[in-house]
Amino acid sequence: MRNYIRIAAPATIANLVCGFDILGLALEEPMDIMELERTDDPGLVIRHTDEYALPLSPEENVAGAALLALLQELQEPIGLQLTTTKHIKPGSGLGSSAASAAGAVVAANRLLGNPFPTPDLIRFAMNGEKVACGVKHADNITPCILGGITLIRAIHPLDIVPLEAPPLHVSVVHPQIEVRTSDARQILRKEVSLKQAIRQWGNIAGLIAGFLQKDYRLISRSLEDVIIEPVRSILIPGFAEVKSRCLEAGALGGGISGSGPSVFMLHETQTQAESTAAIMRDVYNRIGIDHKTYVTRVNTDGVKELP
Amino acid sequence: MRNYIRIAAPATIANLVCGFDILGLALEEPMDIMELERTDDPGLVIRHTDEYALPLSPEENVAGAALLALLQELQEPIGLQLTTTKHIKPGSGLGSSAASAAGAVVAANRLLGNPFPTPDLIRFAMNGEKVACGVKHADNITPCILGGITLIRAIHPLDIVPLEAPPLHVSVVHPQIEVRTSDARQILRKEVSLKQAIRQWGNIAGLIAGFLQKDYRLISRSLEDVIIEPVRSILIPGFAEVKSRCLEAGALGGGISGSGPSVFMLHETQTQAESTAAIMRDVYNRIGIDHKTYVTRVNTDGVKELP
Repeated sequence: MRNYIRIAAPATIANLVCGFDILGLALEEPMDIMELERTDDPGLVIRHTDEYALPLSPEENVAGAALLALLQELQEPIGLQLTTTKHIKPGSGLGSSAASAAGAVVAANRLLGNPFPTPDLIRFAMNGEKVACGVKHADNITPCILGGITLIRAIHPLDIVPLEAPPLHVSVVHPQIEVRTSDARQILRKEVSLKQAIRQWGNIAGLIAGFLQKDYRLISRSLEDVIIEPVRSILIPGFAEVKSRCLEAGALGGGISGSGPSVFMLHETQTQAESTAAIMRDVYNRIGIDHKTYVTRVNTDGVKELP
Repeated sequence: MRNYIRIAAPATIANLVCGFDILGLALEEPMDIMELERTDDPGLVIRHTDEYALPLSPEENVAGAALLALLQELQEPIGLQLTTTKHIKPGSGLGSSAASAAGAVVAANRLLGNPFPTPDLIRFAMNGEKVACGVKHADNITPCILGGITLIRAIHPLDIVPLEAPPLHVSVVHPQIEVRTSDARQILRKEVSLKQAIRQWGNIAGLIAGFLQKDYRLISRSLEDVIIEPVRSILIPGFAEVKSRCLEAGALGGGISGSGPSVFMLHETQTQAESTAAIMRDVYNRIGIDHKTYVTRVNTDGVKELP
């Protein structure tokens, strides 16, 4: 029996433009680092080595709540100590809570000799999302665990479809403003016009076909969100300028990451991703909002063990 | 220069369950037979050898309107006579008008040495749909011309994506009642809940992935329409019973063909399609509605020339 494991849990982008609530992808960076070790006394100890002052009580901690769900279904009482170094800033819209929850349960499962299959791990981790935002959603957790691009066809029962795609380079900007997920949900209209809904499902169908047929042009044409983005983008200063200039500079398309405030763009090449990251920096420097950018790729590994 | 051509134009199923307004497929049968010959006098003569008494004036005739659109963009004035034997009953929901319009323009294009590419042919044929139902829609025309399963990602500008799929066997019942396309459109709500729209785009995403990944189980799980079918199916007596019994008998799924009244089911095997066709006959025999059933397959050829 192993006593120690160290893993990296990737940032993720949910609500992939026209794929609101159903599509997500994992990034190569940023990543949280988590260490999990067995202790002699049964129970769960949470420690952090980062600056975010997250709660240490397991019930109030995202990773803790996910681990408690796992431990509850385990037959034997065991002791675990989790030490997290977060690099994915909470509230960035880059799946920070999903990385905590997914990383913790994947680490625990490996440490214990893989007693649980992936769907169980997703279910446990969803308890962490509930602590983070009140909703048990799976669209960050699933790509975080599996890597790549994942479709959540349905939640009840959970139906997960991993999607092959051609290589995608991603630029991301995190303007350091606060957008609460609950606010971002609240401003959405409860009803949408049938006409807009049809346009949206034409785009989502095109995007899935573009990924699976490895057709960058089709991916690009399909990266259009006529329902969520027009409403939510008003919460993100600079969004319209970032988007239009990045598209001009050759991005395939992009939009709001999760419920924001991060904004991402997809590209065929790293050079293009670098040039749109420069545009992002330029816009937020001029507006005068602190920000952080990433130039990265779609991560096909998901949570991975470190040596 | 050729003077004569004879083609077969297939029936099509539009609004493929969760793919309202964006997905369609072509069938092996029924098919309309059309003969087109050059005449000495410029202009267009329309003849029918069937029982349907369709209009003979080119402007009021579906095939005629499509051909007039083609002739208008042709540089030289020519004379054509079109003779149609329809086997796809008008008003069946099986793309009867699309077969007339698409068959006519494909025949004319081949007769003239293929001056127009496919997107032009689709555009010409959409003029026929306008005569038939007042709307220039392309979701029957496109699979009729191309064969197979086609996605219309967007109409303006037209963006067509042919989709590979595993072999599919189809049973169809056409209960001989009248459902006007305009009525079927009118009873739809103009607004849908965001929640239902998300469920629908999860299903359309799953269906596209199921086709392209050749995953029959995923296709089956994704063949669910929570928006259109609950409203339109009330216009089709026996629908609920046909559907539930066919699913029990092993159909992957199915629904209303186009705007009805025909109902179709998709299957992995011909045996299953035969057994659901028997269920369809049983239901409509008992209700006492005249009907016709087909056991056929997805047609991957589209409009094709006959010897």
